[in-house]
Amino acid sequence: MKGIKIPPEHPRAESLRIRERLIEHFSEGVVATAGLIAHGRGEAFDYLVGERTTKPALNAIKAAASALLTAEKPVVSVNGNTATLVAEEIVKLASVTKARIEVNLFYRSVERELAIKELLEKAGAHEILGVGKNASAKIPELGSERRRVDPQGILLADVVLVPLEDGDRTEALVKMGKKVIAIDLNPLSRTAQKATITIVDNVVRAMPKLVEIAEKLKHDVKKCREILSNFDNEKNLAESISLIKESLSKLAESGDYLTLEDEEL
Amino acid sequence: MKGIKIPPEHPRAESLRIRERLIEHFSEGVVATAGLIAHGRGEAFDYLVGERTTKPALNAIKAAASALLTAEKPVVSVNGNTATLVAEEIVKLASVTKARIEVNLFYRSVERELAIKELLEKAGAHEILGVGKNASAKIPELGSERRRVDPQGILLADVVLVPLEDGDRTEALVKMGKKVIAIDLNPLSRTAQKATITIVDNVVRAMPKLVEIAEKLKHDVKKCREILSNFDNEKNLAESISLIKESLSKLAESGDYLTLEDEEL
Repeated sequence: MKGIKIPPEHPRAESLRIRERLIEHFSEGVVATAGLIAHGRGEAFDYLVGERTTKPALNAIKAAASALLTAEKPVVSVNGNTATLVAEEIVKLASVTKARIEVNLFYRSVERELAIKELLEKAGAHEILGVGKNASAKIPELGSERRRVDPQGILLADVVLVPLEDGDRTEALVKMGKKVIAIDLNPLSRTAQKATITIVDNVVRAMPKLVEIAEKLKHDVKKCREILSNFDNEKNLAESISLIKESLSKLAESGDYLTLEDEEL
Repeated sequence: MKGIKIPPEHPRAESLRIRERLIEHFSEGVVATAGLIAHGRGEAFDYLVGERTTKPALNAIKAAASALLTAEKPVVSVNGNTATLVAEEIVKLASVTKARIEVNLFYRSVERELAIKELLEKAGAHEILGVGKNASAKIPELGSERRRVDPQGILLADVVLVPLEDGDRTEALVKMGKKVIAIDLNPLSRTAQKATITIVDNVVRAMPKLVEIAEKLKHDVKKCREILSNFDNEKNLAESISLIKESLSKLAESGDYLTLEDEEL
């Protein structure tokens, strides 16, 4: 795969470029093996979502920006896939919302933590929590390495943005009383269902939008509180599911099909 | 991931075991990087299908068994993912339907061809076409290495079973006048839409079922012809899409969610 030229006129060029980037960063030790499989699941749901930021996704992005801007101690949690796809947007968002950035992996390895740290620093980050011995605190109720967090970061945070997080950890963070913002293309996943605010969108589209909206809202606390009090995550998720059903109906009727394959197997 | 113990009572144990097997065979050079991503897409659709062999899938399996049994020169095409997941069933199916087995990869490498050959031989195969210089024939209209097939196998075949194939190649084979049987969890994929007979099911469930049904039908050519003349692939695909929509509605209503994540990212 590596080094394959994707013709710009290819109908799936953007999706293929993203895939290519993940495979490259996999070789460099940033993305985990299971991260590639997870990306595939995301691709499938993205097709069903129509590969666009839907209305409910935009609502959730506005609520997410408001939650981060009105937080006492916001933290952006970063894993290998997120660092690969949106390192610059993570740094920008942290700057606009005064959030700290923490590397937080499902299965930790110092090598991967450092590779992710380097990627974020290249994108302009000055401080990265959760690397190596700094991840010394533990989330209750979670087994093994997955529970480790930074006592200066996620442990203290009141609002945590977890793009591409797993269900167990999302639930554990919510139980600790934190507001959890998830970015997850599958509106039926446990992460999506358990999070306080769920953005059903591709991180590649959602993160720049989140930065843009946070920029606009950053001096308007009143507006942020208004957005938050009007936001209903359950209702918003139900709308995302309805949109997928509609999109399936349309695709089936039009005889249009999704070119999900076109790749080496 | 490697060597992780999956508790047998885990609700997603089977799916995690399959994933684990793919990751292992990825390390051994059988599965391609993009094969892991493709597996993720399959996982997502499998959840939506309900992780079961549906009625339309069973209809397609019966038609597939009939097509293979009544073929002059049937061939089973094998790639890295298929060899990893169903090597024994491939060998059994080839034996029951008198089909030849051909290794057929999207991007070829002799190392991977040989690794797949070894896996199939361990599963009991005596003859494997399409390895190394044997893949000397070319499918028209396809670029580069993807078009290479064995002149003794796919080139001559009247019926080709292509589990997990890409859309371009499916279309090219159909244009050459071959009956193409695809196994693809995404009923909207180009492969699914272009194939002569499309089994919307996980290869892990579909292949043993296909062997079982071929065993039952193997002396009943009349029944095979009857099944084939009653089978309508387009109608059958539409039913698969309807089932996914129903399943989404049920999941959304019941508040049940799909634990698609729970994995390292």
